[in-house]
Amino acid sequence: MTSQRPTPTLQDVASRAGVSTATVSRAINFPDQVASTTRSKVNAAIAALGYSPNFGARAMAARRTNTIGAIIPTMENAIFARGLQAFQEELRSNGFTMLVASTAYQPTTEEEQIRSLVARGADALLLIGYHRDPAIYDFLDAQGVPVLLTWAFDPEAARPSVGFNNSAAMQAMAQKVIEMGHRRLALISAETAQNDRASGRRDGIKRAMTVASLNSDALCFVETKYGIDEGAAAFDEVMAQEPRPTAVFCGNDVLAVGALRRARERGIAVPGEVSIIGFDDIELAQVVYPALTTVHVPHREMGRKAGQALVKLLRDGVALEPIEVQTRPVFRGTLGPV
Amino acid sequence: MTSQRPTPTLQDVASRAGVSTATVSRAINFPDQVASTTRSKVNAAIAALGYSPNFGARAMAARRTNTIGAIIPTMENAIFARGLQAFQEELRSNGFTMLVASTAYQPTTEEEQIRSLVARGADALLLIGYHRDPAIYDFLDAQGVPVLLTWAFDPEAARPSVGFNNSAAMQAMAQKVIEMGHRRLALISAETAQNDRASGRRDGIKRAMTVASLNSDALCFVETKYGIDEGAAAFDEVMAQEPRPTAVFCGNDVLAVGALRRARERGIAVPGEVSIIGFDDIELAQVVYPALTTVHVPHREMGRKAGQALVKLLRDGVALEPIEVQTRPVFRGTLGPV
Repeated sequence: MTSQRPTPTLQDVASRAGVSTATVSRAINFPDQVASTTRSKVNAAIAALGYSPNFGARAMAARRTNTIGAIIPTMENAIFARGLQAFQEELRSNGFTMLVASTAYQPTTEEEQIRSLVARGADALLLIGYHRDPAIYDFLDAQGVPVLLTWAFDPEAARPSVGFNNSAAMQAMAQKVIEMGHRRLALISAETAQNDRASGRRDGIKRAMTVASLNSDALCFVETKYGIDEGAAAFDEVMAQEPRPTAVFCGNDVLAVGALRRARERGIAVPGEVSIIGFDDIELAQVVYPALTTVHVPHREMGRKAGQALVKLLRDGVALEPIEVQTRPVFRGTLGPV
Repeated sequence: MTSQRPTPTLQDVASRAGVSTATVSRAINFPDQVASTTRSKVNAAIAALGYSPNFGARAMAARRTNTIGAIIPTMENAIFARGLQAFQEELRSNGFTMLVASTAYQPTTEEEQIRSLVARGADALLLIGYHRDPAIYDFLDAQGVPVLLTWAFDPEAARPSVGFNNSAAMQAMAQKVIEMGHRRLALISAETAQNDRASGRRDGIKRAMTVASLNSDALCFVETKYGIDEGAAAFDEVMAQEPRPTAVFCGNDVLAVGALRRARERGIAVPGEVSIIGFDDIELAQVVYPALTTVHVPHREMGRKAGQALVKLLRDGVALEPIEVQTRPVFRGTLGPV
């Protein structure tokens, strides 16, 4: 852990470049304000010395680190991967770096990571969903760190988000399923208590049932953790109901793929005996057989627009505005008539 | 971007807790050296004020941020997800935070991210594979930032890694495939130029061919980017060979799943007409049908051991040592006799 050579300082860079330390600082933090020949000399000195701008001093001087933190519930299963990749591409093409932390769906972990990223000088944060302790928002406001929410969209919410209406998205799918004659419905869901996306999807199915004059309390509802094996186990649970459901909604594609695998293992025909419906349209949905009927979320568009919004805020001072992206049901092999 | 309340300072915390600023600093950076009642008072003041330790000053004082950076080639497709999740769990249970950056397989992006994480005070870095510009290693040495490599293992290499021997892993699988009578072999690979894992896997197949007295130059070799669609397109390319290969190795499961999907689309029986073999054993491998024959990588074990090694280094000063984890071929539905 000890340096093998002394760490080069701002003064070393200035001496080597033949300029003042103030000029080096300006070349690093406000390159536009420095003549290009000067900038070249400074950059050459930085490269030769292996100088790393002292982050703390730099953040204090410029109040800008060009780093944006993203905190997601999980890195497994690629649920957030595609949207985040597009978010990062947008940031990167505008000179920002993205650092990611993941919470394992634990609110206390998210809180630690928010504090850690703020302490490390993140210019802004991207967080998933609205639901969290108001004290966290107070903390971010006090620190002057802007936060953009995503993966959810509620026009009534105080905080701006770039996302989609989870409830309306699932309701549109449930309406189609009900129109195909399904009456006995089940939902394998992520835990809804701390997850406004999961509870929104559940509410969407219930609303579609109510609109179709079905008793929404009759929805067979099982909560589990996200995972393929968890989806398989929950499928056994919902299929143990008498009478069996004819359509099993899943809170996301990962659970649906687990349900589909279990149906194959048990010799239950999909969609002949039971239809299975996912949510997200991640790559998994198209490689299983039959391919999964699911709600398509425009992950790349959402990530790109979130990146654009934060770049405009940080670079041009354009305030964050709510942006809704559109989901749509995609019908593949796992949904059939009753 | 302006604070709505003034940001609380170290002095504010000290005043509120009724202690000196030096005591606050010690409570933050060396909690063991502070009486527990004092620590409680300081922590209560920090929480009440929403104080965020100034990272720069803290790093300079303590030379420790309890943050470890991990830089991976991609967040898509969950290739690195499971190992990273285990790595993070290990770190977190020891009080470290993990921040992740992804490079889209671009060496220049990796270099930027290394500099960025070092500038943000990362205590150590986890990097994938050995192959990178020696100047980067020189930079990290000069900065005194330890680096642990993973996803590869070469007992001859100067840098310690926690990983597996990509070449030997693929050779063991190729030997089994050749023993089943396959002679016309193809490989759909990631680009090997900047990727020592990909080139190692290719070399493993060639070595198995040589050992079996086959001409290793006859390996039908196609490079592509990682992706399901890319795997599908590359499958068309290798199947256009005359005579057709009877076994198609893929550099990872993502490519293999794309090849398998394309075979189904074209009505080519797997494994009846062609066997398809993956690498990694990510979740994707078990949800496709037929389930994928692949090389199992103990991702969770690897991530956990990498985390343990870095914790021991940073907490106890125990030097990093090379650690090899064992892969094994897993035989599922996509491999059959010729």
